[in-house]
Amino acid sequence: MAEADPIRRLIHQLSRLPGVGEKTATRLAFHLLRADRAICLDLARALEEVSAQVGLCGRCANLAAIDPCPTCRDERRTDDTICVVERPQDQWALERAPEYRGRFHVLHGALDPLSGIGPEQLQIASLLHRLAPAAVREVILATNPTVEGEATALYLARLLKPLGVKVTRIAQGVALGSEIEYADQGTLSRALAHRHDFG
Amino acid sequence: MAEADPIRRLIHQLSRLPGVGEKTATRLAFHLLRADRAICLDLARALEEVSAQVGLCGRCANLAAIDPCPTCRDERRTDDTICVVERPQDQWALERAPEYRGRFHVLHGALDPLSGIGPEQLQIASLLHRLAPAAVREVILATNPTVEGEATALYLARLLKPLGVKVTRIAQGVALGSEIEYADQGTLSRALAHRHDFG
Repeated sequence: MAEADPIRRLIHQLSRLPGVGEKTATRLAFHLLRADRAICLDLARALEEVSAQVGLCGRCANLAAIDPCPTCRDERRTDDTICVVERPQDQWALERAPEYRGRFHVLHGALDPLSGIGPEQLQIASLLHRLAPAAVREVILATNPTVEGEATALYLARLLKPLGVKVTRIAQGVALGSEIEYADQGTLSRALAHRHDFG
Repeated sequence: MAEADPIRRLIHQLSRLPGVGEKTATRLAFHLLRADRAICLDLARALEEVSAQVGLCGRCANLAAIDPCPTCRDERRTDDTICVVERPQDQWALERAPEYRGRFHVLHGALDPLSGIGPEQLQIASLLHRLAPAAVREVILATNPTVEGEATALYLARLLKPLGVKVTRIAQGVALGSEIEYADQGTLSRALAHRHDFG
């Protein structure tokens, strides 16, 4: 009955999700079957809607149901600064920081030649396109502080500087509320190198 | 944009799954958005099909897309023995033990007065109905070796014995406090082989 049975089919589909093995998929499937069927259909509808409605914003390349996306439409934000992130969820996190009132741009990844991710696979052409009208004065590079994220930031800096735009990188150091004792060596080296006048 | 945004709506629906918090739901949602859209739609379709097609088998009360279910239709199985389990996934586990070639009956829970689960909330009337034609000679009680499962087994034994049917309980080869769904095949085989008179 393997694949012909709808329960097994649901388990198979659930087990394709990241971090969900067959046992977890089975548990989730039986939960959905035992619970109110509305939960099952609500989830199905949410998946269909997201698939049908969500696309890339024509300006910032973020995932959104409308184009331009709500952040690009937000009139309280200024056009003179663009914060470049790797993924949409990075933008979500940065939007919670109330200090930043500029725009965003989502690369959808980071340079990773070994995995075949070059500049053409990222939303870099669309970023350059946004800089053309010269209204943008600063680009903040907020790619992850990983090998790939650093390489991407370096690549973008070399690409953007000749265009006369100010290029900055988010500060790297010890996280607020963390303990220095447990910070890794790379973080501490960066925190020391980027120390600033204080008091 | 909270609930109006389809991505947030999908995250909300995913976070209703057991063991899935908001962070995991967000990770799953963005995976589904980043991955091939077919994965998203395949999962939606699987959820709809399971919701539309799966119901209780009119004989054994197991969840199945056809009525009677494949196990009740299986002509290699004999009608003289019924193995009573709490949940469909318990039956799935026991079906893997090749020694048992009889039928099953799914109670859909165990007696739990504190949660308002009495005999009326379980598939006990349908079990009694199956015993009426007197073709059944033995009922194996394979409820979980938990407080509720033991109480349910005891209740069923007292109910069934006066009907002249042999009532057995799976051996306590399965560890106390564990769940049948997750027991290994060897343990389940031992538990079936060592069933004993009960009540």
